[in-house]
Amino acid sequence: MFDPVEKLKEFIRHPSVSADPKFAAGMVGAREFVAGLLRSLGFAVEVVPTPLHPVILAERGGDARWPHVIIYGHYDVQPADPLNLWVSPAFEPALRGRRLYGRGAADNKGPLMTHIAAVARLLERRPDLPLRITFMIEGEEEMGSPSFAAFLAQQRDRLQKADFVFLSDTGSPREDQVVITCGLRGLVLCDVEVTGARTDLHSGLHGGVLRNPIQALAELCASLHTPDGRVNVPGFYDDVLPVEPWERAELAKLGQSEEQYREFLGIPAFHATAGFSPFESARFLPTLEFNGIGGGYQGEGTKTVIPSKAFVKISCRLVPNQSPAKIRALLYAAIRERMPPDVTFRLVDQHEGTPYVVVPPGRANTPPGQPAVLARAFRAADTAVTEIFGKPPLYLREGGSVPIIADIKRVLGLDSVLLGLFLPEDNLHAPNESFHLGMMEKGMATSEKILAAVADA
Amino acid sequence: MFDPVEKLKEFIRHPSVSADPKFAAGMVGAREFVAGLLRSLGFAVEVVPTPLHPVILAERGGDARWPHVIIYGHYDVQPADPLNLWVSPAFEPALRGRRLYGRGAADNKGPLMTHIAAVARLLERRPDLPLRITFMIEGEEEMGSPSFAAFLAQQRDRLQKADFVFLSDTGSPREDQVVITCGLRGLVLCDVEVTGARTDLHSGLHGGVLRNPIQALAELCASLHTPDGRVNVPGFYDDVLPVEPWERAELAKLGQSEEQYREFLGIPAFHATAGFSPFESARFLPTLEFNGIGGGYQGEGTKTVIPSKAFVKISCRLVPNQSPAKIRALLYAAIRERMPPDVTFRLVDQHEGTPYVVVPPGRANTPPGQPAVLARAFRAADTAVTEIFGKPPLYLREGGSVPIIADIKRVLGLDSVLLGLFLPEDNLHAPNESFHLGMMEKGMATSEKILAAVADA
Repeated sequence: MFDPVEKLKEFIRHPSVSADPKFAAGMVGAREFVAGLLRSLGFAVEVVPTPLHPVILAERGGDARWPHVIIYGHYDVQPADPLNLWVSPAFEPALRGRRLYGRGAADNKGPLMTHIAAVARLLERRPDLPLRITFMIEGEEEMGSPSFAAFLAQQRDRLQKADFVFLSDTGSPREDQVVITCGLRGLVLCDVEVTGARTDLHSGLHGGVLRNPIQALAELCASLHTPDGRVNVPGFYDDVLPVEPWERAELAKLGQSEEQYREFLGIPAFHATAGFSPFESARFLPTLEFNGIGGGYQGEGTKTVIPSKAFVKISCRLVPNQSPAKIRALLYAAIRERMPPDVTFRLVDQHEGTPYVVVPPGRANTPPGQPAVLARAFRAADTAVTEIFGKPPLYLREGGSVPIIADIKRVLGLDSVLLGLFLPEDNLHAPNESFHLGMMEKGMATSEKILAAVADA
Repeated sequence: MFDPVEKLKEFIRHPSVSADPKFAAGMVGAREFVAGLLRSLGFAVEVVPTPLHPVILAERGGDARWPHVIIYGHYDVQPADPLNLWVSPAFEPALRGRRLYGRGAADNKGPLMTHIAAVARLLERRPDLPLRITFMIEGEEEMGSPSFAAFLAQQRDRLQKADFVFLSDTGSPREDQVVITCGLRGLVLCDVEVTGARTDLHSGLHGGVLRNPIQALAELCASLHTPDGRVNVPGFYDDVLPVEPWERAELAKLGQSEEQYREFLGIPAFHATAGFSPFESARFLPTLEFNGIGGGYQGEGTKTVIPSKAFVKISCRLVPNQSPAKIRALLYAAIRERMPPDVTFRLVDQHEGTPYVVVPPGRANTPPGQPAVLARAFRAADTAVTEIFGKPPLYLREGGSVPIIADIKRVLGLDSVLLGLFLPEDNLHAPNESFHLGMMEKGMATSEKILAAVADA
């Protein structure tokens, strides 16, 4: 059995930023590293090309009557900037206390390595385990998985007969309280680019004559929320499903402290949607956020220009039953209606993802005819988490998005068991990302138990 | 006599961006180039240190009864970015048609070289000219001249006995219509920096919980104008003086075409202050513009963060009788009142400048007791421009700011004759800045005639 922490360090050293072509070598390095590791465990590894970054498919076959689990992960990471805010370099793994720091440590290299190590340990102990396992590890998750739905369609025949998907690309609130995620928010992303004059202008000679594109953009952005924190796009909330009572009860069990959360964020006050706690707002409601804005002079000192262009990057998070295509259309209609006629603008589609929901067995709204292996996996997860972490898991909808979960459901018809292994302090998508090694150890034991229980039905 | 175009090319090759410490060598190069040129013309040159970029003082003394003119210019230039929009490199002078392209070609290296060449020609022709001339050439104009008022105070004794200041750092609308600028807008600049959470956050995990600093900033920026194009800061217009009838009449003589101006800017429509034409709005009214905005992810693709910080760079242009200190206080009060309590923010002072107005001789509102040499310079300018450009000059207030003109008035008690040599097509402060060589030639002849007429009273 290999040392999973050492292997994770090696994995982090490959700077696999999928969105930035400058990191092409890091993508190749990370991919070859994982493929090699799975080959060394006896898996039949195939690197399946896509239009952009290939998918690793690694299979352990067996008797067709054995249960079949697909373990999903991704080998790509978010950009690491702003680099100056990292305490240690983003792609040099650094162990401080019980945490391993580095871009991708938690999202998703650490959790993925946890499951690879669990499988390695289980197969070492039980070489004849009656379980078919397919690792499906993609390289475009942080770009919104643009090639993944087509990949699934192309590989449908060999993948759709699996029983369920198992993964850890979601979070838990504390080291002693695991969450099994039962819903994910969807996504709609776009850029808005506003143009005023054909070139940057001297603000003295021309100031007072035309609408500054930054002003037009600010007026648009300011119009997209109401003072009570709701998204101000007509029709935006029309398809939002009401929250089930058991979901609210489950969330209440978390016992989170608003004051501690506020201090963790470092904000003077919350600004949640009116009528919802911050915790409810993040999990049950859709949002519209500005991920970046830019225009004009951003350097040192001053430059008295009226810029020619300004842009904003917008992302909406969607909740179950909202359609990305419909929300995009509503948003674009609102933008087109509100943009003044004295500037020009362009809407640039970025990726999108459908929201997802799965109901564990034994709930009032569990769908009839839930597949037996899926139900067994949920029950095994409940038992294993209770034993290893000391508390039963909570079944919660998550604020984040893993759009491929909805794609897997749509294309392959498979539901997913999402075991939350990262913690709020992990700084996902931010400087000083880290993964907690206690979560890694317990996660390995839990994953091993779940897989064994699914095999031993 | 040297070749002024070749000398101007040499001047442009020194990349003298005063606001960016990376260009320190270019600042030294430009300064030594001008100092050397003036020394070669027989001037006693002194490079006077300041806390940042030294001022060149070059004197031609003489009989104390001779008139004394100070010729002002600046050897520093604006930053050249965005560099990718330049047709030829910003600091490689390129002649295309009758235009010389390069950063600083028009602002202010070309016009300054015009006056240096005029003086060289005049003194070659008349070595005994009864005129004292002091070149005063600073290096911080594009940063708002932070050291200049202190420099003037320090040099008050030797400078305040001069009769007037002569310079070309303003524009004219067409090659055949010179403007002598009689008023300049003032300036107040600041940055607003908004902070939300202590670090960038994952927009899925935390979206819907807090106010995005980009949203707070957009809401602030959107609040700073009314729909009719006025600045929405209480008290902003209180001290604005009414426009004199002769000023409106003079502006009307320009005969500018709104449609041509709109096409030149490349905008779908104007957005001037209600009740004023675009031309009046730019010259007679104060403004508030956004010079730059930034925050969050601005790279390729997407990054679904809620940024920790966002900032905007604001500049106000002021008109005669507005006080920079008062306008700054009113603006800051409005920002403090409007910023929501769920974010933190910081106001960063940038430079400021007082607006300026001078009334030429013979107008209804010419101040009594206007100095004789100043009146003579205005009359000489009228005659020289009429003869060389074929039309009398227009006397107009300008939308731009040259804050040092107000400093010179305040500290030295001197008024300025501002001969407009750059054209709207010169792209000041923008990519592909250029200077029209026809303006340079005629400007030289005009400057020579004015200086001779002032000497020969």
